[in-house]
Amino acid sequence: MGGFVKKLIVVAFVLLAAAAVADEGMWLFNRPPRALLKQRYNFDPSQAWLDHLQKSSIRFNNGGSGSFVSADGLILTNHHVGLDCLQKLSTSSHDYVSTGFHAKTHAEEVKCVDLELNVLMSIEDVTPRVNAAVTPAMSTEDATRARRAVMNTIEKESADKTGLRSDVVTLFRGGEYHLYRYKKYTDVRLVFAPEVAIAFFGGDPDNFEYPRYDLDICIFRAYENDKPVHVDNYLAFNPAGPHDGDLIFVSGHPGNTDRLNTVDNLEFMRDYTYPFQLSTLRRREVLLETYSERSAENERRAHDQLFVIKNSRKAYIGLLAGLQDPVIMRAKAASEATLRQKVTGDPQLSAAYGDAWQTVHNAFEGYKPFMFDFRFLEGGTAFNSRLFGIARTIVRLADESQKPNADRLREYRESNIESLKQQLYSTAPIYDDLEIVRFADSLSQWLETVGPNDPTIKQLLADKSPNDLASELVRTTKLMDVAERKRLAEGGKAVVDASTDPMIRVARLVDPRARELRKKYENSVDEPLTQAYAKIANATFKTMGGETYPDATFTLRLSFGPVRGYVENGKQIPWATTMAGTFEHAAEHRNKEPFELPKPWVAKKAAIKGDAPFNFVSTPDIIGGNSGSPVVNRAGEFVGIIFDGNLQSLPWDYQYDDRVGRAVAVDSAAILESLRHVYAADNVVAELTKK
Amino acid sequence: MGGFVKKLIVVAFVLLAAAAVADEGMWLFNRPPRALLKQRYNFDPSQAWLDHLQKSSIRFNNGGSGSFVSADGLILTNHHVGLDCLQKLSTSSHDYVSTGFHAKTHAEEVKCVDLELNVLMSIEDVTPRVNAAVTPAMSTEDATRARRAVMNTIEKESADKTGLRSDVVTLFRGGEYHLYRYKKYTDVRLVFAPEVAIAFFGGDPDNFEYPRYDLDICIFRAYENDKPVHVDNYLAFNPAGPHDGDLIFVSGHPGNTDRLNTVDNLEFMRDYTYPFQLSTLRRREVLLETYSERSAENERRAHDQLFVIKNSRKAYIGLLAGLQDPVIMRAKAASEATLRQKVTGDPQLSAAYGDAWQTVHNAFEGYKPFMFDFRFLEGGTAFNSRLFGIARTIVRLADESQKPNADRLREYRESNIESLKQQLYSTAPIYDDLEIVRFADSLSQWLETVGPNDPTIKQLLADKSPNDLASELVRTTKLMDVAERKRLAEGGKAVVDASTDPMIRVARLVDPRARELRKKYENSVDEPLTQAYAKIANATFKTMGGETYPDATFTLRLSFGPVRGYVENGKQIPWATTMAGTFEHAAEHRNKEPFELPKPWVAKKAAIKGDAPFNFVSTPDIIGGNSGSPVVNRAGEFVGIIFDGNLQSLPWDYQYDDRVGRAVAVDSAAILESLRHVYAADNVVAELTKK
Repeated sequence: MGGFVKKLIVVAFVLLAAAAVADEGMWLFNRPPRALLKQRYNFDPSQAWLDHLQKSSIRFNNGGSGSFVSADGLILTNHHVGLDCLQKLSTSSHDYVSTGFHAKTHAEEVKCVDLELNVLMSIEDVTPRVNAAVTPAMSTEDATRARRAVMNTIEKESADKTGLRSDVVTLFRGGEYHLYRYKKYTDVRLVFAPEVAIAFFGGDPDNFEYPRYDLDICIFRAYENDKPVHVDNYLAFNPAGPHDGDLIFVSGHPGNTDRLNTVDNLEFMRDYTYPFQLSTLRRREVLLETYSERSAENERRAHDQLFVIKNSRKAYIGLLAGLQDPVIMRAKAASEATLRQKVTGDPQLSAAYGDAWQTVHNAFEGYKPFMFDFRFLEGGTAFNSRLFGIARTIVRLADESQKPNADRLREYRESNIESLKQQLYSTAPIYDDLEIVRFADSLSQWLETVGPNDPTIKQLLADKSPNDLASELVRTTKLMDVAERKRLAEGGKAVVDASTDPMIRVARLVDPRARELRKKYENSVDEPLTQAYAKIANATFKTMGGETYPDATFTLRLSFGPVRGYVENGKQIPWATTMAGTFEHAAEHRNKEPFELPKPWVAKKAAIKGDAPFNFVSTPDIIGGNSGSPVVNRAGEFVGIIFDGNLQSLPWDYQYDDRVGRAVAVDSAAILESLRHVYAADNVVAELTKK
Repeated sequence: MGGFVKKLIVVAFVLLAAAAVADEGMWLFNRPPRALLKQRYNFDPSQAWLDHLQKSSIRFNNGGSGSFVSADGLILTNHHVGLDCLQKLSTSSHDYVSTGFHAKTHAEEVKCVDLELNVLMSIEDVTPRVNAAVTPAMSTEDATRARRAVMNTIEKESADKTGLRSDVVTLFRGGEYHLYRYKKYTDVRLVFAPEVAIAFFGGDPDNFEYPRYDLDICIFRAYENDKPVHVDNYLAFNPAGPHDGDLIFVSGHPGNTDRLNTVDNLEFMRDYTYPFQLSTLRRREVLLETYSERSAENERRAHDQLFVIKNSRKAYIGLLAGLQDPVIMRAKAASEATLRQKVTGDPQLSAAYGDAWQTVHNAFEGYKPFMFDFRFLEGGTAFNSRLFGIARTIVRLADESQKPNADRLREYRESNIESLKQQLYSTAPIYDDLEIVRFADSLSQWLETVGPNDPTIKQLLADKSPNDLASELVRTTKLMDVAERKRLAEGGKAVVDASTDPMIRVARLVDPRARELRKKYENSVDEPLTQAYAKIANATFKTMGGETYPDATFTLRLSFGPVRGYVENGKQIPWATTMAGTFEHAAEHRNKEPFELPKPWVAKKAAIKGDAPFNFVSTPDIIGGNSGSPVVNRAGEFVGIIFDGNLQSLPWDYQYDDRVGRAVAVDSAAILESLRHVYAADNVVAELTKK
């Protein structure tokens, strides 16, 4: 699920839970919900417990979570988080996605082509320093610039001093700024993956559903200097898994939530953001399905992209349906009215924060007229092509490198260049036929939306059809070649300016207008929203009080809650499924794809303990990005791994509710059972269970 | 193909081929291209030859073509034309779509639930009478009303006098009006159908492609008074099929073309009509694919609808790509400029026709602001539900029946009531789960497009979500029950007004605004276009001269041309494929669906003559609606059946070109070969080959 719900939303908003209900909350590790845990569960985690869990947790930079599970750097995550790596390592002759993978020795472990992992080492509150750089007298443009400058500077200082990846994270949408320092791993090797048929058993029909029967795991190992790393912090693997009712914790990287968005903001998402995203996703789904149907090799080439699209489409349909439900919107409106009344009733609060809601309203009204231009040109919806992305990065890198660090676009700041080049120089295969159909279709979508008289389209197409232009660009560019990318990127502005590569030419052609739109967006939408939401956040702090957490920002968070089933349409849904249920589920669907079990499962059926738990549900507050998060018990032991939320958890994006919403995890017992009896992965079992 | 490309376009335009090139032309049977045939092929068809072919040809009212092939009323059409009937006759326990069907005796033939066939008996030019009813002084509203009135009257007089279905057909978009009289068959029984896996072998990937290997046939029989009809006009079945280079003829019902649309009109299609249609089709495709994946029974239920959607989506993508090609648009602009110069250069022509192009431009500019409202509310895009369609028909029938025939909406004119009730009382199964997902999604699409403040949406949803409303309506309406539909429809206005059925209530609620939009469309778009295109048609007649044909209107047309292969990307594509090629094509795709051959084909492979031709290509001018059209030779014998056009023929909608565009047909030899050796359908073979 959500690991891949990397929302296309450019606008991501403040969130802040005021009066947390039930076991709501994606808590900061430097501000854990001590009082809540003590009061509800009589649990009081030590600092060492928290530090150990924090440093055992891993962020997958492509959008998911994971954890260390052995002293020798063994890493557990979801198959769908590892899928990107599996896909990039596969070719038409060895397809790890469909056949799975198992390295019996370190020597057999295969290096991923462009994966970066981050482990959070420390958090520092830098709010005063960031806020000091921005004064109320500044124009929105100056404020944006000043804030970006101080953030870039803090990051560079920290990176220079510590050698760690250093990110200033905006929390409470500008209410606070924290400096996160990460240890980075870029040599990550594949150890084990099951077949996609069991990792994603039930496919799109079962995605976001429960009961489930998925072995959604993938095992990697971190290396440094060509050797497995030794880590002090890793999670002890509990072979039995959790029990019904157990308090458990989830430590992972939820990507984005919108819990305290104003009603205007939610309406904008309902009426503009989601419909546009869904229409883009649906057209890409049809495009890639059509492409995939043509041959088995096409299907293999598009597998990962298609998974991401279908997953997002299903999630967004659920999210949109929630916002179209008047019951939910009424509840949102009521809680907003309560907060605003409190603000209005207090002259001091009113003067400080009273205008925030109107500012949000105005920001979106101002955004509407250029939303499509912004999304297509700067957001890249018009250019659904890896080669174009590479060209844009090269062109911008040349320009941005000439500026002082403080003035650069965020993604080109010095502290990020290494990660950026890791992607730019990736040897992941690029298939020209797939590039052409994707690029042509996105150009056509842009043309259909803004019409042929748009000046940029006119100049770009220059009397060609989208199909012809895409085909010509992909076939003639030299950017397939990593060496050529390096030559240009390392050559600097003069070399890039001199390039006549057609894709570079196109990236250059659209860049002035794209940058102008970005500037307009930052000044007229993003900055006013930042300032308004900082006010709303502060108003909430002051009027609600208590322990609070900010909206998700793809930074490490701690969630908690019990393992617990639920009642759906009058039917009791048990806390866990069993291994035996997998075979029944397959039979109910006549063993037809995506309900067809891989051969080893059919062959080893008798050896598998039928009553062992397979997947289980619990109430911790998660969202897309939590995919692969370890589930730990009070003792801090690994008892499972999050891989999905049920359909009823989709609205958690804007409102948590644990009556029927649930996180879905693979049980640690099922992981052991499968590794032992289906895959005979004795080396992995030995390492996981080593005392 | 196109039988099902029943374009959602409400606006369908004049077309008229002026200087016909190559073997272009969808010719009227009362105005055949005698000079052309004589000159190019030294062929001079007798009136008897034409009459025989005309009366052997059949229109399938659900959007396709066919022909009589025996004296006992045996009918050949495409499997995908018969699919609608096959689907409606199937249940979860007997699925004729996947297993095929074969009646060995008349007693085993199964009656279709709501199929109506038409055979054209006569054509009468009624242009003077229609034109006399409309004077230049009339307002557009009065002109629309007067024209509709005289057409309804002519039809009723004819129906009363002859007992035949009588339709006044608008040709040359108002340049001429012809009265078509049809003999109607409503008792149509299924005789034979192959498995969909061979009828649509290659599925969506191969659709609109060539080479092909499809047995896209379905065999019916017409009955009257519970007995097979005896027909004098039927096509003698030629067992050998055509040869490369043979002149052949196609007699069928092309649905719609846009050949002489003005450039403004084509641009409107490119920028508004097609993008909207495609976005609707893609979202419905994703919806039904998702629904189908959940179980084999779901897949069966949605099969026919999904086929139609995928087929249309593929066609529209090709059509849109053509309009996005500057080469095609330049050619269109050049030919329009030539015509306009001739008109401008002649004072008389200029005074009579000179304003037509501006009128077309203005009509579309005026349409843009209410296009979405019109399409969603009156076009029915918001209500993708058979039950809603039934409710709307009942509500409108009650209102329209009270009006004089001349004043009614076209589809409720007296001469059409019988056909309308044939549909309304159809016992075709309606699946409530499928109805709910379709209806909910279309309501959501409407809501996303026009926003929650639209007054009709607000009133309709009444504080419910689209999902909740759709679910409630489908579960509580009584319209699943045919008896209830009859009670309401036959009860008249008082009974319908008294109904509290929730679906009737909804149809009533949206009707005033829907009717208002229709009126606005008719007065401000349709009528100005009718008048403008009549002028453009006349201007073309006067300046170009020669034999001409009007754009397609789902009426009977004659096309001609040679059987001939073509060159694609430097490769010679032969005129025909062979039966043996089918097995090779399956093997190339690892025999995986949709390239998996049905069991009888695999079992009988050795018995099939490998070098017998299977599918062949030719140049006659066809389009969607021609599906199932007989292909005849100079002797008027049946030598094949049209079932598709290749991708390169898609732009024929607005421009015919026979360099690479081709019609694709099943060879009569392949039909015999399969019936004999794969299906042992000896009774059918005997009837087809009876001398």
